Amino acid sequence: MVCQHNDELEALVKKAKKVTDKGEVASYIPALAKADKHDLSVAIYYSNNVCLSAGDVEKTFTLQSISKVLSLALVLMEYGKDKVFSYVGQEPTGDPFNSIIKLETVNPSKPLNPMINAGALVVTSLIRGRTVKERLDYLLSFIRRLTNNQEITYCREVAESEYSTSMINRAMCYYMKQYGIFEDDVEAVMDLYTKQCAIEMNSLDLAKIGSVFALNGRHPETGEQVISKDVARICKTFMVTCGMYNASGEFAIKVGIPAKSGVSGGIMGISPYDFGIGIFGPALDEKGNSIAGVKLLEIMSEMYRLSIF
Amino acid sequence: MVCQHNDELEALVKKAKKVTDKGEVASYIPALAKADKHDLSVAIYYSNNVCLSAGDVEKTFTLQSISKVLSLALVLMEYGKDKVFSYVGQEPTGDPFNSIIKLETVNPSKPLNPMINAGALVVTSLIRGRTVKERLDYLLSFIRRLTNNQEITYCREVAESEYSTSMINRAMCYYMKQYGIFEDDVEAVMDLYTKQCAIEMNSLDLAKIGSVFALNGRHPETGEQVISKDVARICKTFMVTCGMYNASGEFAIKVGIPAKSGVSGGIMGISPYDFGIGIFGPALDEKGNSIAGVKLLEIMSEMYRLSIF
Amino acid sequence: MVCQHNDELEALVKKAKKVTDKGEVASYIPALAKADKHDLSVAIYYSNNVCLSAGDVEKTFTLQSISKVLSLALVLMEYGKDKVFSYVGQEPTGDPFNSIIKLETVNPSKPLNPMINAGALVVTSLIRGRTVKERLDYLLSFIRRLTNNQEITYCREVAESEYSTSMINRAMCYYMKQYGIFEDDVEAVMDLYTKQCAIEMNSLDLAKIGSVFALNGRHPETGEQVISKDVARICKTFMVTCGMYNASGEFAIKVGIPAKSGVSGGIMGISPYDFGIGIFGPALDEKGNSIAGVKLLEIMSEMYRLSIF
Amino acid sequence: MVCQHNDELEALVKKAKKVTDKGEVASYIPALAKADKHDLSVAIYYSNNVCLSAGDVEKTFTLQSISKVLSLALVLMEYGKDKVFSYVGQEPTGDPFNSIIKLETVNPSKPLNPMINAGALVVTSLIRGRTVKERLDYLLSFIRRLTNNQEITYCREVAESEYSTSMINRAMCYYMKQYGIFEDDVEAVMDLYTKQCAIEMNSLDLAKIGSVFALNGRHPETGEQVISKDVARICKTFMVTCGMYNASGEFAIKVGIPAKSGVSGGIMGISPYDFGIGIFGPALDEKGNSIAGVKLLEIMSEMYRLSIF
Repeated sequence: MVCQHNDELEALVKKAKKVTDKGEVASYIPALAKADKHDLSVAIYYSNNVCLSAGDVEKTFTLQSISKVLSLALVLMEYGKDKVFSYVGQEPTGDPFNSIIKLETVNPSKPLNPMINAGALVVTSLIRGRTVKERLDYLLSFIRRLTNNQEITYCREVAESEYSTSMINRAMCYYMKQYGIFEDDVEAVMDLYTKQCAIEMNSLDLAKIGSVFALNGRHPETGEQVISKDVARICKTFMVTCGMYNASGEFAIKVGIPAKSGVSGGIMGISPYDFGIGIFGPALDEKGNSIAGVKLLEIMSEMYRLSIF
Repeated sequence: MVCQHNDELEALVKKAKKVTDKGEVASYIPALAKADKHDLSVAIYYSNNVCLSAGDVEKTFTLQSISKVLSLALVLMEYGKDKVFSYVGQEPTGDPFNSIIKLETVNPSKPLNPMINAGALVVTSLIRGRTVKERLDYLLSFIRRLTNNQEITYCREVAESEYSTSMINRAMCYYMKQYGIFEDDVEAVMDLYTKQCAIEMNSLDLAKIGSVFALNGRHPETGEQVISKDVARICKTFMVTCGMYNASGEFAIKVGIPAKSGVSGGIMGISPYDFGIGIFGPALDEKGNSIAGVKLLEIMSEMYRLSIF
Repeated sequence: MVCQHNDELEALVKKAKKVTDKGEVASYIPALAKADKHDLSVAIYYSNNVCLSAGDVEKTFTLQSISKVLSLALVLMEYGKDKVFSYVGQEPTGDPFNSIIKLETVNPSKPLNPMINAGALVVTSLIRGRTVKERLDYLLSFIRRLTNNQEITYCREVAESEYSTSMINRAMCYYMKQYGIFEDDVEAVMDLYTKQCAIEMNSLDLAKIGSVFALNGRHPETGEQVISKDVARICKTFMVTCGMYNASGEFAIKVGIPAKSGVSGGIMGISPYDFGIGIFGPALDEKGNSIAGVKLLEIMSEMYRLSIF
Repeated sequence: MVCQHNDELEALVKKAKKVTDKGEVASYIPALAKADKHDLSVAIYYSNNVCLSAGDVEKTFTLQSISKVLSLALVLMEYGKDKVFSYVGQEPTGDPFNSIIKLETVNPSKPLNPMINAGALVVTSLIRGRTVKERLDYLLSFIRRLTNNQEITYCREVAESEYSTSMINRAMCYYMKQYGIFEDDVEAVMDLYTKQCAIEMNSLDLAKIGSVFALNGRHPETGEQVISKDVARICKTFMVTCGMYNASGEFAIKVGIPAKSGVSGGIMGISPYDFGIGIFGPALDEKGNSIAGVKLLEIMSEMYRLSIF
């Protein structure tokens, strides 16, 4: 499938790009630090398989936190919501994504939601399989169906870099282990989780995943119900209440669509029934969201009245 | 206007009522403690002015936290969002509605959102007028236009009871005063705020206000644009991200509509474009939401596919 | 009584003074902001009524937090420790003196100790008397007996300045009022408390009060048992565990004597059985202690082996 | 050396024992859970090598948190206070010993003091040696000199039990690793730390260690300066400000001597210049201190005027 370059979209990208100066690329992972902070690309994938783009939509990036929605969808379909929500809560939190405080102050100790790191780690620990490889393959195969792209894999360099530095994530796993919320081997899950975060794709692939959510789980190309309706709805709800870190509330007001961001600068957005959006803009704001990506979505939301509220 | 009793709705109410045993009426305000914990009533007000009801929808109750959305709408129309959001944030919080901690830990010190007490107090402090009476009249006149009911007023007994006991609210006002977030006289705002919370209506009135939000601010009876479109959208967004106290996330997943609850047991819900819902069920769950009201909305959401996600 | 200027002490003062450059005078109270940051004076009052001094020991300053020990002593003698410690705890805290967080997180809600603001406000609220004037006179009369100086009074300008700005202190009073820990009228206590903090004296007076504690409550000049032995011991214990704000632990290691500081730059120190120390040095470190005063006590402690540990 | 049974002391033990009913033995470690909650024994070791005892002072128990003072002494002598205090603070905290919150809220992230778990783990990570065995031998050899008892070793069963369950301690190590406060291999330190906590002795040995601190580091039997004066003073200071968990402040007021407790029910106390105290009473109060041990020290302090304040 080819994605058509679109001039109107290109003009919006150009306008949004102006804010990249005020952002910074994530510096704590060497591979991410190499990104060009002035990059910005967007793809819009419609439910009728039309695709529009602006910027270099072939450039790949790692999913990082965007992967949290996909592992959640997989695990929810596997175990059902009752079991999954016995391990992780459903409430947004005003705390940063890597805060450990509420694990101590909230009783019983369980992560407030699956979009913060503690919650995402528990979700990943629930991915089925006997070995890390088997579990990763299971997740990758799901993501390949979502993108309808068999080439999707993860970036070894980024995964290794994160594996060797993610000490706060380890801290959270052990903390939750004390209370039985996290039952798996910590290092195995760290291995799986950092590979999950390092899964690579481009804006176009990401837009296509968004379109699957827009169609309530049905793939616009293959027609396959890749995600069950109920699970698609739950995931979109989490994207609204806590998809953009602790800027989710402001984003809901300014943009008003389900979206999930990652520190590599990716954002997946969803306009219900209509289309999915894939954005890559590595310069981040202070909350960890793509600064130009958010700006672009604001412009688009206002122009095309995208808000679901 | 007369609201038609509806048998199908009555059956749902009967089903939802079963959970009232597990709830408790709010005990800290004597007037609220007198409520019958097994009460449950609901009114649905459609955009075409049809109204359906079940239970005793004539019974009045005080708005309590539901009033937070209305004062926010008024103040947003008066000053615009830039000014209002310089005083109060837009982020949901995992903390209880009367928590003071984040005022100390978050910098700059400002309430995370206008649906928690600290934020609502700031919003009320912005209501225009030279005296408490003038400011209350201004708010009441707005609410009378929303309900198209000139009789709406507040319950003196409840207001006085809350005024003499709301020490944590006073603490928050003074705390914010130190940082210039709260600029008004504390006792004057406490007087105004407790009267605002004590504004009384019945489920039918509440459903009608919901219908105004459903119609993006336009009143279905009078045709008047009582709330501007943009402000109506912002209020509905807040109702989704933080309208049901620190159970908003779970409610968004289970029910999926903009809603705001109060400790008297009221809930206002909104089905976009279609109708408003007014509920009164004074038995509360441990988060402070009407236990049977939430149950009823869950049943309705599943049956009629109300979720916006 | 005249205090003899002492050359050895003067040399130590000169040495300690070098660090004043790194400190800042308290800026939030206009009257305190006018202090000369390079000032440093010290008086040592021995149990045999010999007094040595260096620097301008006649210069007066307000007690600020130093007054917390004196009101505590008065209230402990009045009501006994069981009653007082039912209102306020005995534990040091790693939090700043004006932190409100633990009032919410610790159950039951009561201030951790009487040396942080919340605890001191409760203690002051317990001072006996029908009016603020009567209660202040009662406290002043106690302090006049401690200094054997009938001239001691408070600085109206400082008191008024603090009264009009102490919003966080008001917040704490109201917060505690919700839980019955604070029972008095908030504004009356604020009036009394800000006057208490504004009580003025010089280093010499302060050293003499220290000597009373050194003699377990007996006044070296008058022979009067101004403070009971038991209460003197309790006060000295608090001065060690929490007398120097959240730098008390480090101070105990570096200096090792009971001491209490105030944001005006005063420090009262006690060498058990031997002498009291009064210091005035308005340049503060980042924890709110006199930077040169602490330095001077470090030098003295090392030189004269003052540590009680 | 034989410790003389003493009737007066026995009477005090009998009196103190009455409170054991209100306490509970630590249940989270199977080996500790087997203790008899009504046990209480005490040994007093004087600087002139006289020893008095009451109860079964031959019964051994594991040091648990008491070991924190000993590893601190060792490490302070090895590296000096500047280096050690660059890794761990000197301030008491009102939080429980295993709280992780302040590692996130205090900047820069470092444990408030070496008596809470986070701080003790950092201290243990600094014990010199190439292997866990070498490092443990180094610590044991130090403790054997302190007790003048070459038989001292650790309890393998308790060490293994704690090693396999201490998830929150692991969480803290990893959290600190993120900020460079903790530099060692986590599992190696966990192995060493749980063995350190499992070092076994009886009340008599413990009293003798106390007497070394009472003599400012000199051993009363061997005459050896086992701990440097300065380090002994620092350790005693920490025992006063934070030796009894978050009940240290109350203990300082009620008893007023340097002391360190452990969850096995041991307490080491020190009466400066005079004697060391070793207590074993496994029933704990809600803060984790030996309930009868604290009671006994209160009685002794009042009777013999032990308070240093």
